[in-house]
Formats: sequence, C-alpha cells, structure tokens
Amino acid sequence: MQNQKLWGGRFRGKTSATVEAFTASIAWDQRLAPYDIQGSLAHAQMLQRQGLLKVSEARKIVQGLKAIRKEIDAGRFPFREECEDIHMNIEARLFEKIGAVAGKLHMGRSRNDQVALDLRLYVRDRTIQIAQSLFQIRERLINRAVKETETVLPGYTHLQRAQPVVLAHYLLAYESMLTRDTQRLLDSLARVQVSPLGSGALAGTSLPLDRKEVARSLGFPWITSNSLDAVSDRDFVVEFLSALSLIAVHLSRWAEEWILWNTTEFGFVDFPDAFCTGSSMMPQKKNPDVLELIRGKSGRVFGNLMALLTLLKGLPLSYNRDLQEDKEPLFDAADTVSACLDLMEQAIRLARFHREAMRKAAEDPMLLATDLAESLVKKGIAFRKAHEIVGKIVAESIRSQRPLNQWSASEFKRFSSAFGNSISKILRSEASVRSRNISGGTAPAQVRRALVEARGVLHQQEIQLKRLSKRR
Amino acid sequence: MQNQKLWGGRFRGKTSATVEAFTASIAWDQRLAPYDIQGSLAHAQMLQRQGLLKVSEARKIVQGLKAIRKEIDAGRFPFREECEDIHMNIEARLFEKIGAVAGKLHMGRSRNDQVALDLRLYVRDRTIQIAQSLFQIRERLINRAVKETETVLPGYTHLQRAQPVVLAHYLLAYESMLTRDTQRLLDSLARVQVSPLGSGALAGTSLPLDRKEVARSLGFPWITSNSLDAVSDRDFVVEFLSALSLIAVHLSRWAEEWILWNTTEFGFVDFPDAFCTGSSMMPQKKNPDVLELIRGKSGRVFGNLMALLTLLKGLPLSYNRDLQEDKEPLFDAADTVSACLDLMEQAIRLARFHREAMRKAAEDPMLLATDLAESLVKKGIAFRKAHEIVGKIVAESIRSQRPLNQWSASEFKRFSSAFGNSISKILRSEASVRSRNISGGTAPAQVRRALVEARGVLHQQEIQLKRLSKRR
Amino acid sequence: MQNQKLWGGRFRGKTSATVEAFTASIAWDQRLAPYDIQGSLAHAQMLQRQGLLKVSEARKIVQGLKAIRKEIDAGRFPFREECEDIHMNIEARLFEKIGAVAGKLHMGRSRNDQVALDLRLYVRDRTIQIAQSLFQIRERLINRAVKETETVLPGYTHLQRAQPVVLAHYLLAYESMLTRDTQRLLDSLARVQVSPLGSGALAGTSLPLDRKEVARSLGFPWITSNSLDAVSDRDFVVEFLSALSLIAVHLSRWAEEWILWNTTEFGFVDFPDAFCTGSSMMPQKKNPDVLELIRGKSGRVFGNLMALLTLLKGLPLSYNRDLQEDKEPLFDAADTVSACLDLMEQAIRLARFHREAMRKAAEDPMLLATDLAESLVKKGIAFRKAHEIVGKIVAESIRSQRPLNQWSASEFKRFSSAFGNSISKILRSEASVRSRNISGGTAPAQVRRALVEARGVLHQQEIQLKRLSKRR
Amino acid sequence: MQNQKLWGGRFRGKTSATVEAFTASIAWDQRLAPYDIQGSLAHAQMLQRQGLLKVSEARKIVQGLKAIRKEIDAGRFPFREECEDIHMNIEARLFEKIGAVAGKLHMGRSRNDQVALDLRLYVRDRTIQIAQSLFQIRERLINRAVKETETVLPGYTHLQRAQPVVLAHYLLAYESMLTRDTQRLLDSLARVQVSPLGSGALAGTSLPLDRKEVARSLGFPWITSNSLDAVSDRDFVVEFLSALSLIAVHLSRWAEEWILWNTTEFGFVDFPDAFCTGSSMMPQKKNPDVLELIRGKSGRVFGNLMALLTLLKGLPLSYNRDLQEDKEPLFDAADTVSACLDLMEQAIRLARFHREAMRKAAEDPMLLATDLAESLVKKGIAFRKAHEIVGKIVAESIRSQRPLNQWSASEFKRFSSAFGNSISKILRSEASVRSRNISGGTAPAQVRRALVEARGVLHQQEIQLKRLSKRR
Repeated sequence: MQNQKLWGGRFRGKTSATVEAFTASIAWDQRLAPYDIQGSLAHAQMLQRQGLLKVSEARKIVQGLKAIRKEIDAGRFPFREECEDIHMNIEARLFEKIGAVAGKLHMGRSRNDQVALDLRLYVRDRTIQIAQSLFQIRERLINRAVKETETVLPGYTHLQRAQPVVLAHYLLAYESMLTRDTQRLLDSLARVQVSPLGSGALAGTSLPLDRKEVARSLGFPWITSNSLDAVSDRDFVVEFLSALSLIAVHLSRWAEEWILWNTTEFGFVDFPDAFCTGSSMMPQKKNPDVLELIRGKSGRVFGNLMALLTLLKGLPLSYNRDLQEDKEPLFDAADTVSACLDLMEQAIRLARFHREAMRKAAEDPMLLATDLAESLVKKGIAFRKAHEIVGKIVAESIRSQRPLNQWSASEFKRFSSAFGNSISKILRSEASVRSRNISGGTAPAQVRRALVEARGVLHQQEIQLKRLSKRR
Repeated sequence: MQNQKLWGGRFRGKTSATVEAFTASIAWDQRLAPYDIQGSLAHAQMLQRQGLLKVSEARKIVQGLKAIRKEIDAGRFPFREECEDIHMNIEARLFEKIGAVAGKLHMGRSRNDQVALDLRLYVRDRTIQIAQSLFQIRERLINRAVKETETVLPGYTHLQRAQPVVLAHYLLAYESMLTRDTQRLLDSLARVQVSPLGSGALAGTSLPLDRKEVARSLGFPWITSNSLDAVSDRDFVVEFLSALSLIAVHLSRWAEEWILWNTTEFGFVDFPDAFCTGSSMMPQKKNPDVLELIRGKSGRVFGNLMALLTLLKGLPLSYNRDLQEDKEPLFDAADTVSACLDLMEQAIRLARFHREAMRKAAEDPMLLATDLAESLVKKGIAFRKAHEIVGKIVAESIRSQRPLNQWSASEFKRFSSAFGNSISKILRSEASVRSRNISGGTAPAQVRRALVEARGVLHQQEIQLKRLSKRR
Repeated sequence: MQNQKLWGGRFRGKTSATVEAFTASIAWDQRLAPYDIQGSLAHAQMLQRQGLLKVSEARKIVQGLKAIRKEIDAGRFPFREECEDIHMNIEARLFEKIGAVAGKLHMGRSRNDQVALDLRLYVRDRTIQIAQSLFQIRERLINRAVKETETVLPGYTHLQRAQPVVLAHYLLAYESMLTRDTQRLLDSLARVQVSPLGSGALAGTSLPLDRKEVARSLGFPWITSNSLDAVSDRDFVVEFLSALSLIAVHLSRWAEEWILWNTTEFGFVDFPDAFCTGSSMMPQKKNPDVLELIRGKSGRVFGNLMALLTLLKGLPLSYNRDLQEDKEPLFDAADTVSACLDLMEQAIRLARFHREAMRKAAEDPMLLATDLAESLVKKGIAFRKAHEIVGKIVAESIRSQRPLNQWSASEFKRFSSAFGNSISKILRSEASVRSRNISGGTAPAQVRRALVEARGVLHQQEIQLKRLSKRR
Repeated sequence: MQNQKLWGGRFRGKTSATVEAFTASIAWDQRLAPYDIQGSLAHAQMLQRQGLLKVSEARKIVQGLKAIRKEIDAGRFPFREECEDIHMNIEARLFEKIGAVAGKLHMGRSRNDQVALDLRLYVRDRTIQIAQSLFQIRERLINRAVKETETVLPGYTHLQRAQPVVLAHYLLAYESMLTRDTQRLLDSLARVQVSPLGSGALAGTSLPLDRKEVARSLGFPWITSNSLDAVSDRDFVVEFLSALSLIAVHLSRWAEEWILWNTTEFGFVDFPDAFCTGSSMMPQKKNPDVLELIRGKSGRVFGNLMALLTLLKGLPLSYNRDLQEDKEPLFDAADTVSACLDLMEQAIRLARFHREAMRKAAEDPMLLATDLAESLVKKGIAFRKAHEIVGKIVAESIRSQRPLNQWSASEFKRFSSAFGNSISKILRSEASVRSRNISGGTAPAQVRRALVEARGVLHQQEIQLKRLSKRR
C-alpha cells in the first residue's frame, strides 16, 4: 500500500496512526496559518516575476491562497491531522481548490525554510504587539505617577523601612524596568526580520529565486547568509523568550510588592471588587488573585525558555525534527506575557492608593537616620564617623523607647557637638525626600524631571518601532 | 450590581470580564472532572454517615453528581468560564439539577482542600498508568534482548569504539534505567495517596467530618497531618515531574543512540516506512522523526519542572492563587512522557537490527586492546605496565597500518615476552565478550542471567504496584 | 615526544597545556579523595582475596593508600593538574610511595566505574548528613511549637488574613514539609547504595573480580546489573538534586514568611543582633539577611538541577566526558542546602515571637466569618446559603464601618433568624481555633496530638536511617 | 559587647560566626576588587571636584586606593571574612593605610549602588573580552573555510544524508551563529554602560554629587534614571547570561557535530594527540574529550541563567540581600563560555579534515534526488509531481539495489519522458553543489561571496565595539 503523503513517493508503507498523531503539529501550528499564507503569497509572486510561474498560474495560486485565508479566518478550514502540519494542510487544500497547478507552489522551497519564515513573521508580530503593550502600561504608569510626586511612603530595602520616598518614584522604578524591556525587543528585531526563504531544505536551490525580492515584499530588511544555519536557527525565538522572561521577572516583582501593599498589615493599596475574587469557604475574603497569578506565571515563562534551550543543546546541523517542539513554548510565553501585561495595565488603572497609610508609615523618625548622618557630613565629619554616631543614637532611641522626633537638640548634641539647633527641620519625611535632590533621586522636583524624560524616551521608542516595522 | 459568584455575598461589583478570563482555569482543569466528582461523592457519603446530611439529601446529591459525570463523559457538560474552575462548574450544575440541597455539599470543605485532593487523585492515576507503560516497554526490551545475546557490536565510550559487547547488553542498559524509574514512581505513591480533605481553607473545620473515612473510600491509606501545609503542598507534583524528567532523560539518550545507529554511517538499525516520515523537498529522504521528537521533548518536561519549582519558590503559607498554575505543567509533562513511552515501545517493536553491520564494526581488532592488556595481567604483569605495553602496540599498529589481527605471535612478543602463542584466540570479538564473564558484564551467559533477573524484578514491581493501589 | 600520562602509551604528542587545564577536574574532584581511597582499599582487598594480588602486594598498596589519606587529611598532598583528576593523582602518588606494584591496583577497573563509585559514596554521605540536619531542625521546630499551642495569630491565604490559627500549627506546617523531604532522601538510598565496581570501562572485565564482596565491604547492599548503564548512570545525582530542590523550596517559603513577619508592618518576629546585619549607609537598619539569602539560594539549587538534566539529555551510551561536569552542581547543591539548614536551625532557635502582636492581628472579627457560616450550617442551613448570608453581613460591616464583634444578636438575626443568642461566644478567635477540632486542624488539642505524632515519625525515621546505613 | 562592623553603631550583639560565614561574600566577590577600586577612585575625584573632599583628603584616598590595588594585584591583600565583602574589605584596609580620612570615601554612597557599579564594570569587561574571542574564532573559521570551498561532503538533515554541500559552507554556518552572538553582546552594552552611582541605598543622597561626571570618568555614556530601580536592577546580568546561553547552545551544536565526524563511522575529522586524552583501562582509546566537555558545559550556563531568573522572581523593591547570589552564576557563566571559546578556537585550528572520506560519503547518488526533481521542474513539471516521480525512482532504486548513477537515461525516461539525455551530468555531487547558486546557498561561488561578506561584517563589528567602549 502506497503512502498518500505529499512526500510519500518513495514510501511503500502507510504511516502508522500513532506515529501520525505523535508527529503531527497541526493542533498548534495552525496559529501560523496567516503567516504561512503571507509567505506563500510572497513566494508565488516572486516565482512569477522570475518566470518560474506563468502569470495565469500565479494568479490561480494567489486566488487559491486568499480563498484559504478566508476559510481560516472564518473558522471553516478543514484541518486534518494526516496532513501533519500547517504547511501541508494548506498545500493539500490548495490542490482541492485549484488542482494540479498547486503543485508548483513548493518549487525551490522546503518546509524547513518555510517554517523558519513563518516563525519569524510570527515573532515579529508578537514583538511589536508586546512592545505596544509596554508603551501603554508605561504611559499609564507615568500618568498615575504625575499625581503622586508628593505622596510620601517608606522606601524599603530588605523589606525593612529604609528611607522616605515619593510614590511616583516607586511607579517610575517599574517604568524604568519596562523601558529596558522595550529596548531589548526593539534591538531584537534586527535578528528577527531576516528572510530565510530560498535556503531550501539545507543547501539552497538550483532554481533562480530572487530572495531579496521576497524579503522586501514581506517587509524584512535582510536575508539570511547561510542556508545550513538558516533552516536550523531558532536563536531569535530564544532571544524573544529571554526578553519575555525579564518582563515576567519585572511583573512578578511588581505583583509581589502590590500583594504586600494590599495586606491588612501594609494597607497601602486596594482594588475594586471587579478586580478581585472571593473564597468558596470564607465569606469575608477578597483576594488579589490577578496579582498572584501574574507573579506565578513567571515560572512558566522561565520554563518555556529552559525547554527551548534544552531542545537546541547538542543539535547537529542542519534541520532536525526536534525543532518542531519550538512552537508551543513560544506561543505560550507570548500569550502569557501578553495577558499579564494587559492585566497589569488594569491593575495600575484600578489601584486605589491609601495615601494616609503611606504617610503614617513614612513618619517613623528612624527612617531619617541617614539624613542625620548626612547633616553631620555637611559639617565636615567623616561619613563613617557620622554613621557610627547616628548608630549610637538609634540604639539609645530603641533602648529608651523614645522616638527621635521627641528628642531635643541638646540630647542630640550629647552624641556630637556638630548637630545644629535646627535638627527638627531635618526630622521630617517631607524634608528628607526634598533633600534627595539628585538625578534619579526621590526629591519631587527630580521625579517631575524624570517624568518628563520618561515621556520623551517613550515617544522616541514609539518612533523607532514605527521605523523598524514600517515596511510591513 | 451584585456579584453572582457562589462566593459573591460580600462583593458589590461584578468581576471584570478580562479578570474572569485571566483567572478562570476551566479551560484546562476540566480534566480533573472525574476526580472532582469522585472526591465529592466520597465527601457526601461521609457527611451522611456523620449525620450532617440526611439520607435523602445525600441520595439526591449522589444522583446529581453521577448524572453530571455522565454528561461530562458524553461531552455534553456545559462548561462556563464565568464559573471559573471545575469545582464551581460542577457545583453550579448541581444546583441546576437538584436545587438548593446542592448548597450542602460544600460544607466543611474549601476549594483549597478540594483541588489538592483532585490533583492527588490525578497524579495517582498517571503514576500508575506510566508505571504500567514502563512495565510494557521493559517487557518488550527483554523479549527482544532474548534473541540478541550473541549479537556482537562495538560498545562505545566518548562515541569512540571501545570494546565489543552484545546487543542484548545494550538493550538491558535501557531496561535498567527504566527499572529505576519505575521504582521511583512506586516510592512516590506514599506521598501521593494522602487525603487532604478536611483541611478546609487552611485551618480545618468546626464540623465533625470523618477524614479517615473519606480517605478509605478513595483508596488513600493516609490523611495529611497539617491543614496549613495540606492546602499549599504541591511537593507530590514536583516529585512526579522530577521522576518524569529522569524518564525523559533516559528516552532522550536512547533516542539519540538509535538516531545515530540509523545513519548511513552506522547502519545498525532501521525502521519500516510506517514509523518514518519524508521530506517535502527531497524525494529520497526517510527520517527517524519519532526518535528526534522523543529526544526533543525532554526539553519541555524539564521546562515544566522548572516552571513548577519557580512557582513554589518563596510562597508563604498557606494557599496562594499562584498555585493554580500547577496544572498545565503537570498535565503537559504527564501527556508528553506517556506519549513518548508509547512511541518508544513501538520503536523497540519495529526496529530492524542489522546484525551483519554490527558484527563488521565490532571486528576492528583495536577494540581488543584491553583484552591484550588483561591477558598480560593474568601472566602477572602489573596492569599499568600492561596498559603501557599495549599502548605501544597500538601506536605501532597505527604507524605501520597493520591491524593487530594480522600480527604474528612473535611480533607481539617483541613488545612483551609474556605474550603467549595463542594470542590469536584472544583477538576475536566473540572471545572478548565471552571473557567478560562477570556479574553485569557483557558475556552472553551473564546477559542471559541478567535477563532472568530483569524479568524477576519486573514481576515483583508489578505485584508491588497492585498492592499499593489495591484499595482503589 | 611521548605523552607521559598513565594512559599515554599510544600517544605520541604531549597534551597541550590549555587542553590539560580545560579537561582537568582535580581542582574540585579532590573532594572525592576520601571516597576514592575508600573504594581503592576495598578493591585491593578483594583483589587479594581473589588471588589477583599477593598478600604482600596488597599490604603495600593498602599501606600506601592509607599514607596518602593521611597526607590529604593533613593538607599536604601535592595535587597536580597534569594528573587530571583525583584518581590519577592518587595512583601517581602511589607509584611514588610504593613503586611499580602500584600499577597493579587498577586491574579490572576503569576510571569510569571508579568515579561512579566515588560519587555514590559521596552522595550517600551527604544524604545521611542532610537527613540528620533535617532531624535536628525538625526537633527544634517541635520543641518551640510545644510552647506555642495556645498562641493565636491570623492564618493567611493569598496573604490576606483568613482564619485564626495557633502558632504551633504554623511551625508544624514546616515540620510536615521537612518530614516528606526526609522520607524522600531515605527512599533514594536504595538507588544510591549500589556498587558499580567491576563494570570496567563499559563491558565488565575478564579478570575474576568479586563484585559483591567489594559492595559488602563498602556497606552497599546491592551491585549494579548492567555495566553499560553503570558507568553512565547519574540518576542518583539527579534524584538527590531533585530532593534538595524541594528542600530549597520549603526553606525559601519559610524564609519569605519570616521576612514578612519581621517587617514593621507585621511585627510578629524578630531576631537578636547576632543574627542580623546592618547597612553601610543607613545607620538605623537591621536586616534579616540570613533569611533573604536562604530564600535566594533556592535559585542556585534549581540551577544546579537544570544544569545536570541538560548535561544528561541526549547522551548516548556509555561513558561520555560530559559527565565530568556532574560534580560541581552536585557539590554546590549539597553545600548550599546544608548551610541553609544549619542557618535555619539557628533562626528557629533565635526567633523571638511577638505574641501580643499576633494576638492583636488575630482579633479582627472578619476572620470569624467562616465560624458564623458554620454555625448556621449546624442549624441546618445549606452551606452555600450560609456563605451568602454571612457575605452580606460582611458587606454591611464594611459599609457601616462597624466591626462584627460590636453587633448585637438581633442585628445578626436581621440577616438570618437561625442565628442564636450566644453568637458573641463564636466571635472570639480562641473559640474559633478551639472549634477546628479535626485531625490536622488548628485546635490546640489537635496540635498537641500532632506534636506527639510528629515526634513519633521523627523517631521512626531516625531508626530507618540507622538501619539503612548500618553496614558502613 | 559592641558589634565591630563598619555598620555596627546600633548593634549591641556581635554577629554570630556562622552568620558571618554564611553572609560573607568575600570568597568570591574579591574578583570585583579592581572594579571596586576603579569606582572608588572616580567617586573620590568627583567628591573633590564638588568640594566635598579637600584636595589633600582626596589625594590621600586616591593614593591609599592605589596602594591597595597594588597589594591585590600582588596577591598580598589580607582578605578578611569578618569584613563581609569586597567593599568593606577595601574600606577597612583604607583605614589601616590612611587613617580616619578613609571614613569620608563612602559619603553619598551605599554598598547598594557601589556593587551595582562594580558589577556593571565587570560585565562590560567580560562582554568586550568575549566579543573579542568571538572575533578571533570567527576569523579562524573564515580562514579555514577559504581553503574548503570545493570540499564536498554530505549535508545532513535529521542526521540523514540530504544533499551535497561544501565544507566551507558548514564552517560558515557556525560563523553565522557567532556573528549574531557578537551583535547581541554589542547591543547589550547600551544597557550595561549606565552608572548607578549616586543612587545611594535606594533614594539618592542629600549630598551634591555629580553623577554624570563619575559616569564620564568611568567611560559610561549614561546614568540610571531611578534610584529604587538602580540598586536592584540585575537585568544586565540576566541579559548577559542569556547571550552566553546562546553561545553555549552554538558551541554544543558544533561540538556534537565534530564528535560525530570524529567517529570511526563518519571519519570526517580528527585531531592531534595534543588535543585528545586516553583511557585508564583501554590502551587504544583516543577521545575527543575537549569537545565533549564543551557540549556538556552548556548545561551549567543554562543552570546559571535559571538560577538568576529564579533569584529575581518576586523580589520587591528595592535592594534585597538575595541579590548577593548574583555573582557566582555570573562569574561561572563568563568563565565557562570564555574557556569554551578558547578551546573551540584551538579545535578549529587543529582539526584535520578527511576530504577523501567526505567526498566518498557525498557520492551517494541518493543525495541528488532533489536535483533530479528540480531538473524536471525546469522542464515545466509541477514540483509536487516531480517529487512524486523521483520518489518512485528512489523506491525502485532501493528495491532493485541499483544505485541511480548506474541507471541509463532510458531507465529514467520510463518514469518521466521529461528526463533529458544528459541526466548523468546532473548526477554528480560537484554539479549539485555548483547548481545551488543562490545567495546563502552552497555553490562554491556563493560561498566565496559569503566569505567576503563575513569578513566585512566582522570588521564592522570590530569598529563598533571600539567605538562603544572607547571612553574607557
């Protein structure tokens, strides 16, 4: 019995059903359908321009592909597992639609370079889409931060209260992280938008294809330089997943912080009912589930990255079937990060900050110990000495259970004569934040400047993205 | 507007649609449906025995649950995303079927302990199923090995030919790995078959439940000892994924070896057409895709393990919503390893060994250098000295391009007078394998003994599994 | 120029210096020295018993090895990179000490089975040592818990206050995790204590070794069953690292919780100065650095596991040099977890619990909503209905800003006539914990029972460990 | 008793010895010494310019630091564990050298921003160094490829012989991978060369530092924009490790291929004795250990990446002590990849290609099936039809055991009349490679063009690196 596959000429036995089910990828690579058709359209048009297809043949193929695209968009396309993957499904359907001329589409092409192209088109789209989500969330952060440049709360190190900062400063910290994330994605496009078509199975083709023409029509500025590498290169997927992993790190850090802030103990933020869920057993519960899920989902993004790195380890050139396993981790990571960004954008929109609780927490005079030390430094005392003096003051305050803002100037002077009389002016959190008037510091004036700069960078990156993807 | 969730009493706002979509797990946790119903049946029956449900109430609930099970089995159950998860979907459906009495089922229970139970029932089932697959594949290996105890091929270290071994010895190496895998799974059941029901949300319940009765009726020999731990413990999932990762390692090693053996260069094995696939571009190609996929799929299993470890890192007690993310890695790893085992079982069944090619490759007299050295040792020469002498013989053989089996006894004696006249008897691969007559060694007699032992262990483990899971 | 290595007979060129540096493992595998000597002693004694060594030869070798062990213990052993690894370093040194007879030690042995043995001896030791640390820390937990069976604090889910629990219950939750960890280690010994010696390079040996005798003298109950597998099996290392990863998960969770409890906001625990460190800039800071490091170190343990899994992926049989990379991840993971356990043991010893702060936090009547619902259930109201009623009560309490413990019985009855007059008795956290009088629940009586059981399991596991490792 | 730490003012208890040992990082962060001093010099000089240090004070500090640098370079610096880390070790030593004025150095600075700077200086250096190694190895690849543009061997897909290619094409495939690696490193410098100094502990400082001046003097084009982010940002480390992971992937793939090529079965390459090692048991063995280690070391690089991602997951702002764990994975990954690159550079230099064996393997006429199909396409036959025809020819060739190059033209014509008479011209591997005359293809002419382009890109990247790091 003959094997009915499109590659079945040399085969006598039919593929076993379990093998077919195990090797088929159509269940998930159907997501590549629009990219596969986009690539085939570009390929067919080039073939015609090169005289490898007649005008009438090319027209038929193009119309057939467009009809198939409509079927897919409408959810009417008959995906078949026995056709293995999206490429063969579409080619087989093309035969049904336009007959034997469909057999001309695959000339000079292999599934190896075809899927490499599909993946690159997909990664480009998701890169752009996620960059745009980052723009949106960053703009939201900036917009909320604008209103919080005077809201004082404790800054933490080691989860211990450290120094007073303003809330806008906190919000801009996340914005800074996401700005780096965006730039990383933009940089990566130089390694994504490179067309592999024309690499054939591994060695190129003897047919006179115009590789640059195909790239141009797909909006790719470059073509790959080595066919062996081109059909087995998944670096751009790893790079994308690495970038997504860092986004996931940032979102997990942010989520953790707001989960803490949302506890009864901190009480710095809460969210409307619409953003929370309850308990099946405890009637009073209202939980920040969304933030917990965002924190937890970092794991699957890292897992996807590890899956892909392991997959590629030790693979000799060129294409190996192992590479089929690249798709699910890629899709899952992109979907996960994309959804988390959308939800985090909602979180920043819906968060209700409890300024009074923040202010109260920041009032603890212990947070001003560094201010005391720096005031001594300004009087010429070596910082290390000043640190030691204030350390002793702190110890005494704990021992005597008398907060520093209840101390008189003379009490301070017992520890160092360099303390001035106006020490009470230092011992206020507003004064403290205002004094950190250094670039990147938490003084409201600096934070306002940082906000302006953040908007500027955001705008520049938007322009850069447009430029990079303009040829689509 | 009131929140219509089953937990919605205290909520005024309706859950946002995007939040609902993001937090809902029904798309994948519907796989837990049979386990959820199994757990609810046991819970309901115990409630009745404890007098917490009337007989008539319990009967209604049981009948309702069974009707729902039929709907699910038949694919007719109306899963609803707004009911979030499998637990709430089933409870909501129960209301539709039997009315207000459905509201009694959840007494003394929380989704926290309920899902912990569902997961444990699921992991038990997959553990048993995968252990059975391992039994099957091991039996297949043993059956093929029986016929290959005299088939000589080169054993490799560093992928360099090292010493002659028999093919059955190779096959038993994989069998040994899978025997350890089986035992690891069997051991883990002691940490899986522990019922968490009765832990409530985190602190237990004030209702007089009989936890041991529920455990008994589910076939679990033990109950958890701490409610805070019980609702947040996913160790059994990690342990299962660790065991699956090692199986994946073993399958990847085996697949790699047979991919090599299937090359033109090695030519030790091939497979029928039904087990291979072709190329869309190259008409002559017949590729061992199944083996490549098995090798590659190790990555996703490791990735799933990493996802779960990351998920759990740093989670405070007790339940956190992050834990919802445990399911997909678990399901995916179990499905992946399960499918790989099935296909590898086919591979061992369908493999056609090329004994002649193996024999030829094993004939290289270089592989007998250790035999030469050990023959000197038997004459009283220190092994290190013997090694050096044979090393020089090897060097001379390479230099002069004269294989050792063409050397005369006197030529050997030029390197050491201890060489006897019967050296040609040593220089045969059959003699070499026969001489390694040590437990675990490659002598056919030893391999036959190992086969008997392997069958014995297999049988014992089958009995052990039956005993461990007999109460189901 | 001749290669001077012990394996250099066939080599004409000297190993390049960079290759020597790159391939040498002596910098770290010197940690295996005691195990290597232990194995060699057992090997030599067996060789003598088998007549392969004369009594005088064996005596010389044994004395030489013991002298070398003393050198190593005293830090006077001249480790040499050009001798590559610990095995060759010791063998070369043996030559220096006892002359040519040293060359007889390696008969019937390869570095492949030798290092496999060394690793197994090492893993056994570290498994036992870490199990003992687990015993110690669990005992400490139990001892502290004994004093805290009446200390009430809020139990948390989603980091939101959920229900009152007693502190001993929290402490026993960690104890439960570590009990599982211990059992996992104990189970693994069945796969560690298996002697590979006699497997030779890959195929066994033609010399009449007594494998079981060697195993016996090393205290290993079993010998490996397949030489190809034995020289390339690192499953026991992966299994050990998987078990360590779960310990690291548990410690990271515990550390996270106590970092939170140590914040000003929670204020449930603090530590003496000796356990904390300060800030180079902020004089007031006292940070729980140890706990943060324990939390963070989980990453490197997971990383080590990932490194090893990746290492093994796709390795064909039998020994490949890649395997040399198994040691550093193993050593690092064992050292890391070992140190973390020691420090966590200190943490539990030094922790100062702030019972008053805990009690205050637990007083929030919202935490008793489930108690209210369950009280209705006891009156025959369906749980789901009761949940809804109490949900509305909660909503009203928030709206009116009147805590539930200020409500009169008649106010409750407006929501359900089933509420009794003694509702104020329910609305106390002590009553709440006492009511959760179910196995594994938080009622002090149950927790006291759990403490007794925990001690029992601990004792049984100690006996099991002794039995398992008695033959050493 | 007072705590003697530089931060010990508020502490009454001495740090416990085990805590000291556990928290100290000096054992490994001493590698940061040159960077720490570089940063302190820049800080001190800026302080003077800002009037915060007198000229004489600054001079003393600068001289002291330079003296310390000399001590460290000479290996004479007394590292002390009780000084915890490299920063405190150097500061304490500075006190010993120049007295109390040393106490002025730390003003406006925290260890939090100090270590962030040290790490950035370190990562910059390693980035540049590894980029230079990549340049070197790529140049070596190009130089060897130049001589192999006519060396024909089989190209492989699925490890099955696929189509003939030229060896230079293979070598350039690796070169392409490394070119992307280089560009990724160059891009990352924009996120590395950003000075965090002036961020203080988390909030900035009230002292009038000139942050840009410090950056300028360190050759950093940018300063960080948010102090909370700056002290806790380790993204640049993750990004570096991601880039190193991809390099490790590439090296593992290349190593795997050459291990295969070095087998007796392939026989395409071997290496001089100096690059190989032997067996302690088997006198004939000569193993490609270096390549195996390179393949295996990919695992630890991935593991390091995983460790770092896990470390960062869920860390709230700003600095947490967990971050101390960033160093060892970073150092290890950089050292590992760096050593692998050096050794791989040796491998490409020392490899002896066996052109005759390659040629013979490529002669298999089955490899020309695609050429046959494409010849039919040129006659107007649809590719899919042509594929099928040639598939049947292949099947017949296998059935009849008659290689295609023994077929007459008329035999081919039985399968399709479109076959011409000159079919024998197609059926030569040289003709096949020559025909793949498409950009990126394997035709010698194309490969020569690719070589020129590769040199061009290499040169441009060298210039880019110089420009990017010129300000140092």
